[in-house]
Amino acid sequence: MTPMRTAIYPGSFDPVTYGHLDLIERATRIFDRVIVAVLRNTDKPGLFSIEERMGLLREACQSFAGVEIDAFDGLLVDYVRSKGADVVVRGLRAVSDFEHELQMALMNRTMAPEVETFFMMTSAGYSFLSSSLVREIASFGGPVHDLVPPHVEVALRRKFQSSL
Amino acid sequence: MTPMRTAIYPGSFDPVTYGHLDLIERATRIFDRVIVAVLRNTDKPGLFSIEERMGLLREACQSFAGVEIDAFDGLLVDYVRSKGADVVVRGLRAVSDFEHELQMALMNRTMAPEVETFFMMTSAGYSFLSSSLVREIASFGGPVHDLVPPHVEVALRRKFQSSL
Amino acid sequence: MTPMRTAIYPGSFDPVTYGHLDLIERATRIFDRVIVAVLRNTDKPGLFSIEERMGLLREACQSFAGVEIDAFDGLLVDYVRSKGADVVVRGLRAVSDFEHELQMALMNRTMAPEVETFFMMTSAGYSFLSSSLVREIASFGGPVHDLVPPHVEVALRRKFQSSL
Amino acid sequence: MTPMRTAIYPGSFDPVTYGHLDLIERATRIFDRVIVAVLRNTDKPGLFSIEERMGLLREACQSFAGVEIDAFDGLLVDYVRSKGADVVVRGLRAVSDFEHELQMALMNRTMAPEVETFFMMTSAGYSFLSSSLVREIASFGGPVHDLVPPHVEVALRRKFQSSL
Amino acid sequence: MTPMRTAIYPGSFDPVTYGHLDLIERATRIFDRVIVAVLRNTDKPGLFSIEERMGLLREACQSFAGVEIDAFDGLLVDYVRSKGADVVVRGLRAVSDFEHELQMALMNRTMAPEVETFFMMTSAGYSFLSSSLVREIASFGGPVHDLVPPHVEVALRRKFQSSL
Amino acid sequence: MTPMRTAIYPGSFDPVTYGHLDLIERATRIFDRVIVAVLRNTDKPGLFSIEERMGLLREACQSFAGVEIDAFDGLLVDYVRSKGADVVVRGLRAVSDFEHELQMALMNRTMAPEVETFFMMTSAGYSFLSSSLVREIASFGGPVHDLVPPHVEVALRRKFQSSL
Repeated sequence: MTPMRTAIYPGSFDPVTYGHLDLIERATRIFDRVIVAVLRNTDKPGLFSIEERMGLLREACQSFAGVEIDAFDGLLVDYVRSKGADVVVRGLRAVSDFEHELQMALMNRTMAPEVETFFMMTSAGYSFLSSSLVREIASFGGPVHDLVPPHVEVALRRKFQSSL
Repeated sequence: MTPMRTAIYPGSFDPVTYGHLDLIERATRIFDRVIVAVLRNTDKPGLFSIEERMGLLREACQSFAGVEIDAFDGLLVDYVRSKGADVVVRGLRAVSDFEHELQMALMNRTMAPEVETFFMMTSAGYSFLSSSLVREIASFGGPVHDLVPPHVEVALRRKFQSSL
Repeated sequence: MTPMRTAIYPGSFDPVTYGHLDLIERATRIFDRVIVAVLRNTDKPGLFSIEERMGLLREACQSFAGVEIDAFDGLLVDYVRSKGADVVVRGLRAVSDFEHELQMALMNRTMAPEVETFFMMTSAGYSFLSSSLVREIASFGGPVHDLVPPHVEVALRRKFQSSL
Repeated sequence: MTPMRTAIYPGSFDPVTYGHLDLIERATRIFDRVIVAVLRNTDKPGLFSIEERMGLLREACQSFAGVEIDAFDGLLVDYVRSKGADVVVRGLRAVSDFEHELQMALMNRTMAPEVETFFMMTSAGYSFLSSSLVREIASFGGPVHDLVPPHVEVALRRKFQSSL
Repeated sequence: MTPMRTAIYPGSFDPVTYGHLDLIERATRIFDRVIVAVLRNTDKPGLFSIEERMGLLREACQSFAGVEIDAFDGLLVDYVRSKGADVVVRGLRAVSDFEHELQMALMNRTMAPEVETFFMMTSAGYSFLSSSLVREIASFGGPVHDLVPPHVEVALRRKFQSSL
Repeated sequence: MTPMRTAIYPGSFDPVTYGHLDLIERATRIFDRVIVAVLRNTDKPGLFSIEERMGLLREACQSFAGVEIDAFDGLLVDYVRSKGADVVVRGLRAVSDFEHELQMALMNRTMAPEVETFFMMTSAGYSFLSSSLVREIASFGGPVHDLVPPHVEVALRRKFQSSL
């Protein structure tokens, strides 16, 4: 009998973009359960609160089977173990991603050799896309409808109007 | 019920190194079945024949559960489909690997969107290791016992002695 | 009065892809005259002859205003001067391109400081696309209709059938 | 009749260096009008005020024909459109530049497909040169006369003396 | 008669790791005198004070012959000259290191052509290791005994307990 | 008493360029003895014979104290040991150099931990310069006087005239 496979997809998701959703959807085809885990980073407050980010993710992922939205702090490997997961999934867009991700993956393996990291290439059409660019464009009132789902676009607009 | 997950690990394996074996062993922990597939490339003859490479792989992998050794030619995506596999697994060592692998993964997705490619980081201790470096060192009679299993070391020595 | 601006777009074009055509079309919007110049490289024979490559380019570019198809050998800077051109245009897809192109551009500036090189980013959707990948896929009978125009697809099929 | 070509060269210019001036001078040979546009970034205050940077640029560029000094905030593509410009010009020094610039150029193309970005390689002798390194050296009283024009050197010295 | 050779190894060392110690030990085999120089950077306060970092280094290096621990501020090249040193030694781990280090080395050569910079490759097993990753792991109570000497582990634990 | 320090500078030197000479000259300031060692690579014949390359190097280096010209085949680490050398010196120009050199250095350390590799940055003005580019330019009759010493320029011209 084949055991169930669980993958963790950790990140900031401030906010979720079509690039993230492309990865989540592809991960659900391979893994039985995909936990999208928002990192609680007390150093960087971010644009959206952890709870807002989880809400935007939940709405964006509701049509995907086997996806859970969660949040964590502390060491990623401790979180992975607490969830009984087998694999960490990360997206790679560019060489600069690659170097940082390589260092993190090697570090995690030193601390938890049984936790495997799989890297997936971001689709070519989303290779330029990051949450920080989305935030920057939205802050100037620029168009983001090709970059994020409609409900995220609405949330961005509301966020930046209230800061005017 | 969870379906069986099959991963293809394609490569030249001329010859298999401890870097490859590290990846194969880690892949068997995640996938039910790992097919190590030697690429028949008629352009580059290589040091070992396809059959010799498969024999060295078979001996090196005999203690791993769920590993099959095979060979293929033509397009990788066609081979993956013919095996009913879900995932292609590739190792990443360095930035130069990354760029080429990124292009291949994007190209394969254009031709077969249902085939996913997962990249695994080579262990830090093997980040410099490649089959071509092993061949070069062995050709000068240098030490390769930290780089390949004993039976591959014997095969390398025999190969280079016969060419003297 | 503004002088006419001429750009040279040199390359192998073996064969022309949608990535090349995207760049040529964008260059025509900025320059009055764009000369697509096929490099005669006697070392590498290639799949298509220089004349075939020029023919495929001519058909692919017939709807663009201000484009000429040519071929050259020798030093690029000598060719640029002989055409009275102002600018060399090159496409960048990835870091590995970047390094080689940087070296060529600096070398050319040493020899001909008045010749400027402009780099244009390849569109995200074509970042994996190269003539060599197209040749490889076509050689195995794989699908290339998203990568090259129809008349190039026909020429590729003819080329590989005749070699069976 | 050939239309006039306008290029925008955006940046922080805090302060202008010989690397920037090399690029501006080369751009004026290709474009009829080059607008050097200082980015008003309210997040990072910088060493010189926007007005001081524009003054230093104006003095440095007074011998170049067709150069205008300006400042902008908001989205670059909105500014480019408001100026009726055709092209954004950016300098590339190194691989790390390249990746960030590639992402910005692809993002801008998503928002404004008619705005083209041209990259020019920084001259080899200036490949290490950045405004932040100039500021760092000047802050310790180190020599900057090979890196910036004399009037910028004077302005730097004054700035750091007043902060003692 | 051969003159004595002095090398400076500058850095933040906040705190010293096994990666630093590997480099220091290897440098002592080539140079008669190796000065490990902690950069006093008033902008970034860091986890350990400059004096604490020097203390941890002194204890870690006590078995190496010819090593001195020092601190400096201002321009590196001024410090090198003041010590009568011949060479600056720096470790390279990854491509991103490489670019930044290349720029610093070229900048330093512009200011002090007689000061040479030598780069040593970090051992493969330490390629992922940095002081900032050590700080991050220790801040979450994760294991660092493979990354730093025992007395540094103790100092880290004390530092993070006192901040609870 | 300080022991004599010997460095090996291995390479193809087909032919020697001003970039190589810049490195050799700088190495002689640090090391008592610098052995420039031409690699006998039977696979790639090259433009100049090993003896011609050594002759061009000898003439180019005659004003440098402590430089010897030699040739070697087999493993570099075996050659270094046979010479009683302490250090291998290599030049780095670009990221692509870096990756290959990193792999070679790590491999050599596996085989001979007592052999240290030092990397020196190529001067900014020579960052684009390679023997293969020199050969290519000379083959088309292009100018190489800024790239190689006069006697190498003469040798290149003779070589390419005789092949007409």
